[in-house]
Amino acid sequence: MTPDAAYKALETRFKRMNLVYDAIAMLDWDAAAMMPDGGANARADQVATLKVIAHEQATDPAMAELFDQAKPADPWAQANLREMRRGWLHATAVPGDLVEAKSKAVSECEMRWRTARKENDFKGLLPYLRRVLDLTKEVATIKAEKLGRTKYDALLDEYEPGGSSAEIDAIFDDLAKFLPDFTRAVLERQAAQAPALPLEGPFPAATQKQLAHDLMASVGFDFEHGRLDTSHHPFCGGVPDDVRLTTRWDEKDFAKGLMGVLHETGHAMYELGLPQTWRNQPVGFARGMSVHESQSLLVEMQASRSDAFLRYLAPKAAAAFGKSGPAWTPENFARVYRRVSRGLIRVDADEVTYPAHVILRYRLERALIEDRMDLADLPGAWNEQMRELVGIVPPDDRDGCLQDIHWPGGSWGYFPTYTLGAMTAAQLYAAAKQADPTIEPSISKGDFKPLMAWLRANVHALGSSLSASELLTRATGKKLDAAVFKAHLKTRYLDG
Amino acid sequence: MTPDAAYKALETRFKRMNLVYDAIAMLDWDAAAMMPDGGANARADQVATLKVIAHEQATDPAMAELFDQAKPADPWAQANLREMRRGWLHATAVPGDLVEAKSKAVSECEMRWRTARKENDFKGLLPYLRRVLDLTKEVATIKAEKLGRTKYDALLDEYEPGGSSAEIDAIFDDLAKFLPDFTRAVLERQAAQAPALPLEGPFPAATQKQLAHDLMASVGFDFEHGRLDTSHHPFCGGVPDDVRLTTRWDEKDFAKGLMGVLHETGHAMYELGLPQTWRNQPVGFARGMSVHESQSLLVEMQASRSDAFLRYLAPKAAAAFGKSGPAWTPENFARVYRRVSRGLIRVDADEVTYPAHVILRYRLERALIEDRMDLADLPGAWNEQMRELVGIVPPDDRDGCLQDIHWPGGSWGYFPTYTLGAMTAAQLYAAAKQADPTIEPSISKGDFKPLMAWLRANVHALGSSLSASELLTRATGKKLDAAVFKAHLKTRYLDG
Repeated sequence: MTPDAAYKALETRFKRMNLVYDAIAMLDWDAAAMMPDGGANARADQVATLKVIAHEQATDPAMAELFDQAKPADPWAQANLREMRRGWLHATAVPGDLVEAKSKAVSECEMRWRTARKENDFKGLLPYLRRVLDLTKEVATIKAEKLGRTKYDALLDEYEPGGSSAEIDAIFDDLAKFLPDFTRAVLERQAAQAPALPLEGPFPAATQKQLAHDLMASVGFDFEHGRLDTSHHPFCGGVPDDVRLTTRWDEKDFAKGLMGVLHETGHAMYELGLPQTWRNQPVGFARGMSVHESQSLLVEMQASRSDAFLRYLAPKAAAAFGKSGPAWTPENFARVYRRVSRGLIRVDADEVTYPAHVILRYRLERALIEDRMDLADLPGAWNEQMRELVGIVPPDDRDGCLQDIHWPGGSWGYFPTYTLGAMTAAQLYAAAKQADPTIEPSISKGDFKPLMAWLRANVHALGSSLSASELLTRATGKKLDAAVFKAHLKTRYLDG
Repeated sequence: MTPDAAYKALETRFKRMNLVYDAIAMLDWDAAAMMPDGGANARADQVATLKVIAHEQATDPAMAELFDQAKPADPWAQANLREMRRGWLHATAVPGDLVEAKSKAVSECEMRWRTARKENDFKGLLPYLRRVLDLTKEVATIKAEKLGRTKYDALLDEYEPGGSSAEIDAIFDDLAKFLPDFTRAVLERQAAQAPALPLEGPFPAATQKQLAHDLMASVGFDFEHGRLDTSHHPFCGGVPDDVRLTTRWDEKDFAKGLMGVLHETGHAMYELGLPQTWRNQPVGFARGMSVHESQSLLVEMQASRSDAFLRYLAPKAAAAFGKSGPAWTPENFARVYRRVSRGLIRVDADEVTYPAHVILRYRLERALIEDRMDLADLPGAWNEQMRELVGIVPPDDRDGCLQDIHWPGGSWGYFPTYTLGAMTAAQLYAAAKQADPTIEPSISKGDFKPLMAWLRANVHALGSSLSASELLTRATGKKLDAAVFKAHLKTRYLDG
């Protein structure tokens, strides 16, 4: 087989495999947004079968030879080959019986976790979580060997291709030093100011939905290529040509849900903007979790909580719900949307304290993977880090180390991508505004087109052709720099 | 491999293949009910890939040996093996290049048909339809050889397993003799009676939907295992544990759509009632198109247009829409729902004239498949049969031989199942009422439980363990008998 034919054969195989994953994505959306409860077992069987089929395609022995022979000349094809190889390595590195054992341990641990969290029972969860951790370490050891990385970095690579804990350490240590004093200063300043006036409902779901639709359209969401529906946990699913957003409507509070929709719309814009010519090829995929999260946080945190956008949003929301008065001003919206508090729960955390929650998890999961800590010591270590980083201590494990599903679910190495994403968002938004001064004035009129044009050219349309670090350097002139994120926080929370 | 192991291996393979088809069924439902237009290309790629995967599973060379070795002892397993073999034969009989050529010809012909119908252009369609017919005849010739049947029966077998045109001829010739005089008598009687009073709207879609939900629940539809949504063409999709019905709402006319929902609910009850222990095995599937259509028509035509049900429906519909007066009586509902007229269009035909439309198509498609007629002569032959069987002649081909998508779509041998289903429905309903005299009194109170209990035991739970003919004989004491259907028509349209 010629090098060109070998490469083409790989493209054909990856297209086919990725179309199976696309089908799974649609079925997963349906399970969350449409499926009646009684369909769950049948659906689990369907998805499990499709996963086995895709895995068999990935592990077909013929692949190794194709990888040996393929030598494309085109730079995008070369990048595609590199991404194919990375995906293939993750899919084939670990023997099938270990994959199965971990999958089984995760299922059992997740189920146990639901009860353990409710009952504040870390001890009851411990043996299940230890089993998941042990198997994850086995996976890490094997992948570390094959990838030539440390164990933690080998896990990280699945979510953050090419990510390095040495680099994350430097950035997170910088932030960890900065955050405690900064948070104290923000809280003091906030206490000295007028409190946010409550936005009083009720807010009918249908009105919220119409408002969300309008704002999604303002951001640029293409309803010819996607939908908005309701599910218990909001997410952005589907495939790039058919993006399925979900949210839920709280009739007592529209403000949080609305930002949730804008967050998911940021994810959606990334998917919708991926390079059309590389659909279903690895180089056409989103770059990784930190870049993906940067796109949601860029829309939600950077753009939609900016003064510019709140000037547009406040009167629009007031009109939609038929409200008026001092609570419905841009200034009060800013107080509502920028309220900072020391909380126990990561998913409820604000922009300032969120990174502290993430740094804590990153440090602990690394210590556990690298055998520098025993799992039985997790609750104590958690509370200690909470005191240091967030400034409060959980009264129990329910709102402490039992709060997240990631570790019981087998996702180790995922947490840092949240804060890497927040920092990437700040850096991209600053560069975008500098490159195109019409961006913020447009956003103040509800028009995201200039922002999205810049993101399309500098992020979305690049797919996975560059590493996250290369992409950021190309777009902003430098690697990820904590100083930009810190400057953003200072401007918004101390100077604003 | 032991005979038992070979059979188990087949079960595993068929389960896996059928789960892929289940995934396709869910994606098809989504495409009709949920998908934005821009998702169509991506969806076509997903479904095409899953179909290729399922086809590769079916045509795996290892299957032949497993079929040679498998010898299960259990009667259901034996029936399962028989059905596996039948499905495998249909899947593997025809060489891949012929399957592909037909699939391509069908795509082109369907596309051309949409224009040709609009423009009343049979001549323009002719070369495309001839290509589909020629390839269908090639398929028929190959399958006839492998199945040991005539060419037409080999095509019929795909929709009506074991169906025989010799038996259909006898039944249809009987009906064809009966219908012209009977139709004339019904029309004369109808002309002498008071005409149906119009049910005047508007009928808000939300109210129609609530009413449809209530009636589906009355029939026994389990919303824990299914949904009702909107699509352009109503259908019953999904899988037995998660049945997805669709309909559309006409705010000027609720009556037709409501019967459409009841029709699809009949299909759904069959799927929901298939044997739970044989999910994803061929013996656990519905028995074929005529039995499936019998279940929809049993609910729609036999039960829901009975005097008993209309006594329940008329006041319920009046209350739902806030209506009253002489149009909203059971007697007027009966006139609305039993109006007979000679029409040109099959899908708009009433219970009395529908079989004539089907017999016409059956006779013509057989003549075409058996080379007793040239395709160029179709319009003339169509009009001649319309005159003889329905009693009117189409003014053009648009409302004549161009009206159905079946032939351009490559579905030859499908048409007779509609009327076989109608007759089977009449025979099953008569036997059910005789076996359980509480059935009709219950239906007059909107309670379908006794009827569904009988159908569950005598039809649904049998899956494909028996042939359609064996199933009917077991349930009613005799093979399909046109006399029962004729008696039903006489009772309803001349004596009632």
